[in-house]
Amino acid sequence: MNTVKSLLLGTALSIAATGAYADLKPEDAIKNRKAGYNVMSWNMSKIKGMVIDNPESFDAKQVANAANAIAAVANMGMGALYIPGSEESIGDMKTRAKKEIFTDKEGVKEVAIKFNQAANELAKVAATGDKIVIAQAFKDTGASCKACHDKYRKD
Amino acid sequence: MNTVKSLLLGTALSIAATGAYADLKPEDAIKNRKAGYNVMSWNMSKIKGMVIDNPESFDAKQVANAANAIAAVANMGMGALYIPGSEESIGDMKTRAKKEIFTDKEGVKEVAIKFNQAANELAKVAATGDKIVIAQAFKDTGASCKACHDKYRKD
Repeated sequence: MNTVKSLLLGTALSIAATGAYADLKPEDAIKNRKAGYNVMSWNMSKIKGMVIDNPESFDAKQVANAANAIAAVANMGMGALYIPGSEESIGDMKTRAKKEIFTDKEGVKEVAIKFNQAANELAKVAATGDKIVIAQAFKDTGASCKACHDKYRKD
Repeated sequence: MNTVKSLLLGTALSIAATGAYADLKPEDAIKNRKAGYNVMSWNMSKIKGMVIDNPESFDAKQVANAANAIAAVANMGMGALYIPGSEESIGDMKTRAKKEIFTDKEGVKEVAIKFNQAANELAKVAATGDKIVIAQAFKDTGASCKACHDKYRKD
């Protein structure tokens, strides 16, 4: 929970004091958000490939590295990137975020906590190399991604 | 070194067997590469803000999370994204990769190993919360980023 609290609260509280955030342009906030989701999506697809679609290609080290990337991005403070001015696409920098993600703090907190817990669990079990347990944690993580997409992402 | 070997060799060797890679379009390979670099860049800028530019804003947990994100992306197998067809920009999907990154395997291996070692060291020392040691590891990581940019990235 400390990690999740850090993500949701600590990061937001210290935005003003941190140079890297103070200068962040809305288009760069969108860019960084999309980069984080892209890294997670690519690594989810790799795990899916090695655990679900093509289990004979299972490589414990690669699955663990992919799960670590997902968890690390989940823990890096994406919430701080939903800054004023980044609610809508800016030129070529498109965002599919619904406006509710900027206003529904309780709802966002709920899906974010569930996602962070699932991603950290996936990284934890990936380190064991147990394909069956990893497959379940992968599905749980995917479900927690979808829960947020369904609520806060445009089609 | 195992992680580095996995990045450079293991990933490449198992590309053919892994569904997630087999279907990767060149434009998506570029997109995923850029997302990885973007996540690392944003987290480097956060660490710089909290360790170099504005040290009174230092937050050990945030620095550790940022360093973990950089290391996890460094370990996730970016080398596998330099696939045939992704040498040049494709429409709006721009790449600044020089063609040498696709051909100079020994040179790429050298900068990649140095970068991975620096990024993993940064994550290791970030976990200690020692600002002075983190600052040095941050500079070493930045230097290893620059070594690759100077050699393999267009301006």
